[in-house]
Amino acid sequence: MALAAHEDLYLLLVGDEAKLAPMLGHYGIKGDLALRAEIVHAAGVVTMDDKATSILKDKKDSSIRVAAQLVREGKADGVVSMGHTGAAMVASKLVIGTLEGVDRPCLASVMPNMKGRPTVLLDVGANVDSKAEQIAQFALMGSIYAEEVLGVASPRVGILSVGEEDGKGTGTTKTAAHILRELDLNFGGNAEGRDIWNGNFDVIACDGFVGNAILKSSESLAEGIVQGLRDSISQSFISKIGGLLAKGAIRRFMKKLDYAEYGGAPLLGVKGVSIIGHGRSNGRAVASGIRAALRASEHHLNERIQNSLPHQSGNHVALPEEVR
Amino acid sequence: MALAAHEDLYLLLVGDEAKLAPMLGHYGIKGDLALRAEIVHAAGVVTMDDKATSILKDKKDSSIRVAAQLVREGKADGVVSMGHTGAAMVASKLVIGTLEGVDRPCLASVMPNMKGRPTVLLDVGANVDSKAEQIAQFALMGSIYAEEVLGVASPRVGILSVGEEDGKGTGTTKTAAHILRELDLNFGGNAEGRDIWNGNFDVIACDGFVGNAILKSSESLAEGIVQGLRDSISQSFISKIGGLLAKGAIRRFMKKLDYAEYGGAPLLGVKGVSIIGHGRSNGRAVASGIRAALRASEHHLNERIQNSLPHQSGNHVALPEEVR
Repeated sequence: MALAAHEDLYLLLVGDEAKLAPMLGHYGIKGDLALRAEIVHAAGVVTMDDKATSILKDKKDSSIRVAAQLVREGKADGVVSMGHTGAAMVASKLVIGTLEGVDRPCLASVMPNMKGRPTVLLDVGANVDSKAEQIAQFALMGSIYAEEVLGVASPRVGILSVGEEDGKGTGTTKTAAHILRELDLNFGGNAEGRDIWNGNFDVIACDGFVGNAILKSSESLAEGIVQGLRDSISQSFISKIGGLLAKGAIRRFMKKLDYAEYGGAPLLGVKGVSIIGHGRSNGRAVASGIRAALRASEHHLNERIQNSLPHQSGNHVALPEEVR
Repeated sequence: MALAAHEDLYLLLVGDEAKLAPMLGHYGIKGDLALRAEIVHAAGVVTMDDKATSILKDKKDSSIRVAAQLVREGKADGVVSMGHTGAAMVASKLVIGTLEGVDRPCLASVMPNMKGRPTVLLDVGANVDSKAEQIAQFALMGSIYAEEVLGVASPRVGILSVGEEDGKGTGTTKTAAHILRELDLNFGGNAEGRDIWNGNFDVIACDGFVGNAILKSSESLAEGIVQGLRDSISQSFISKIGGLLAKGAIRRFMKKLDYAEYGGAPLLGVKGVSIIGHGRSNGRAVASGIRAALRASEHHLNERIQNSLPHQSGNHVALPEEVR
């Protein structure tokens, strides 16, 4: 899907060559498309039981480590993975490396809001205990991502807090808001939990602990509501008929909420592009992830991020201590 | 509803007597029921535009302040309010006062989970930047509330974190978990965002900033999904018919998610009982709030909380600095 949709895409498929080679034809990668696809062999795999840091030691031959190495060496512009999130983060932060001037890379989740548009929530788990300066950087990077990759003009940016008023929040959120007021972006002040869904903001920045808890809570709540409605409807004949008649309408709505459209979470602030998708991604979600990576690269996302950073100390080297 | 359901309930109705008096008969408070209801006049009202601290200065005659005063003076066991949340918190913390040995009172939200049972999430906004010892106290108070008021036997208690494993989280969550492991309760370790909804835990403790963001995000997401489904279904004739046929089933499910059943958030850790309900509460929700207050009082919630506190320094006086 991605190769067919984007003529300027050249795809390196990293994994076990013996397994990947027969798949190319099966999934329609032949003729002209095959000219833009290449298998790069990687013998190892990071499983869900492995530690994220395993790629630094015994899993150096894993596909995610090999793929990150390709980006590090300039042989690829970005990496897209639907595997072990922690391993993909470690590979991106330590193998590809942190962008100069960026304090901490952060994971951005693109959530579908009730206006049918995306809200970028970040950080959703690359960090905990983030400092105000870091949260302000998350906001800045999220704003540039929304503009360049999601095509949102002048994204409205907020800092997640416990009330709309400037006085509400912690010392950290107030300082972050203060920093953002001085920067050249469309800062809308404090956002509240409900603003993630109502479309009042395009980008909402917060500490990774908070973002992670909200992301996981929201996924579970949405699934629970949908499953609960389904179970309740299937309990009687009449309501089952009703459910069938309303099926199209329900599907149309569910599509609005569909994660697959936005295709994974970008890890912002690394040299190169890194998109980390949900383990349950379908083909469309993976294709969307590849599209996002391609856009980020073509729109010079990282160049824009670096030029926007308020101060560039330049001595930020990715260190193993950053690994969690 | 509350008077009819609970024979041991004596209700003080605090507000403008001229407005309240005619309502008694209108809402069926007559005959025997009227013997257990009494109006206490309060001339003032805290409006949504007022600051929470207004009750300390120019709104000393407000109904919430007068009601809290009744509890302080031992004329009432508890207060139930569906008004200004901040004002109710200030009245409870500063007029009624903090329970001896409790560091910070906290607001507990009783959320309906997918197993159709309640999950107590706390703190949801009485504090921000909570220390580990405070989060451990929240967990302990939540566990006792779940047991005594919600009737959950040996509630399973968790600390909200970013992963199930003990090593995941911040220094604060790890220390809080360490404290709870030493206490006499059913501690289940780290909970994740999804555990708020899946019923794996009965009580989940976190900092008020995080809890508040999750609560507001969840309310908005659930409303958005329900509204979005409704809108989508009403767009075609066929799906409208389907929606009508499935209406009963949808309603049965929505009842499971209904806040009204659990009736408001208790502010735990104050001398006396304080239940703070949603501004949009219906009659059933208010009756549930009154029932919760009655149970908390009858089951000696505060005595149990005080006896369970690991250390009782006793020098915790409610100070105006606590007001946010």
